[in-house]
Amino acid sequence: MEYFPPALEALVEQFARLPGVGKKSAQRLAFFVLGLPTEETQAFADAIVAAKSSIALCPVCRNFTEGEGLCPICRSSKRDEATVCVVADPKDVVALERSREYAGRYHVLHGVISPMNHVGPDDLHIKELLDRVAGGDIREVIMATNPTTEGEATAMYLSRLLKPFGVKVTRLAYGVPVGGQLEFADDATLGRALEGRREM
Amino acid sequence: MEYFPPALEALVEQFARLPGVGKKSAQRLAFFVLGLPTEETQAFADAIVAAKSSIALCPVCRNFTEGEGLCPICRSSKRDEATVCVVADPKDVVALERSREYAGRYHVLHGVISPMNHVGPDDLHIKELLDRVAGGDIREVIMATNPTTEGEATAMYLSRLLKPFGVKVTRLAYGVPVGGQLEFADDATLGRALEGRREM
Repeated sequence: MEYFPPALEALVEQFARLPGVGKKSAQRLAFFVLGLPTEETQAFADAIVAAKSSIALCPVCRNFTEGEGLCPICRSSKRDEATVCVVADPKDVVALERSREYAGRYHVLHGVISPMNHVGPDDLHIKELLDRVAGGDIREVIMATNPTTEGEATAMYLSRLLKPFGVKVTRLAYGVPVGGQLEFADDATLGRALEGRREM
Repeated sequence: MEYFPPALEALVEQFARLPGVGKKSAQRLAFFVLGLPTEETQAFADAIVAAKSSIALCPVCRNFTEGEGLCPICRSSKRDEATVCVVADPKDVVALERSREYAGRYHVLHGVISPMNHVGPDDLHIKELLDRVAGGDIREVIMATNPTTEGEATAMYLSRLLKPFGVKVTRLAYGVPVGGQLEFADDATLGRALEGRREM
């Protein structure tokens, strides 16, 4: 029996380790990469090494940043230091920045508490958040984890840890999404939207 | 607005070029790779470069092979040179080898004719197959493209090209899959299975 050459098998295995990529997809990805011109294959490999060597976590907010030192948001004097928005993931920072509505700082947990996936509080950047709040300059911490069971539980857990510091802890508003249609909103969302209604 | 650092954005873009990987999955893959220890990220990058530099197409059957020269199957004197099995893809060679039923050689087209995807006969390794058959030592060519419309059409097209060489052209048998259940077999498969019935 002749299978793939070892170097190809090794590449398939590397792709198969990626999350959500099974053996079959890994083969497809490996074949695709092999089919690229040599310069482009090299560029792919270089991008991996370059990203790994140049990207670090900001020592304050734990968001991804290039090189040593603070990330651009923590470095900026235009951002309100007294407000910290807690998100699960760097991509949530991108989403919030896109809204152009937020001028405070962030704190990235890199995950949510999830006993099913063996992620406990110690696996997240929670201690760093407590240290920041203990520092004393923070007045409000906005919980912006996903409105899922695990996201909610993590926000609840953090809010209990933060309360003793005398800091204001808030949560993103729930409601019907802008541009969405009421008939497609689920019951829980509609319930929350009613509960949080405001005078016009 | 602060987005991802450029090196991270570059890595996300590399992943997003892969087939079936959208922008969101590319982010997830890039984050995963960044989260690996440095040695493992390096190993990933190295596997890409190593595969690309060491894997070539066998000059005879066009299957993937390591280094220059013939692939192990074309090199082996134990394989029947007079029989060539035509497949669309290197992974089909792996599937057929796994059956341990085939002792001939292969020819890998690297695709099927697909006008929808702008793949014509010239984009496949068809000329190389004709050259092999024109060489004169081949007695039987077994079409083993997928039993899909495009696979069938490609097999039909090739069989017309090959007939003038006086070579026997056969097609893999259609029928109910071993271990499958009749009630779940589709009409076309059952029809083909009846048509191809054999005396016991």
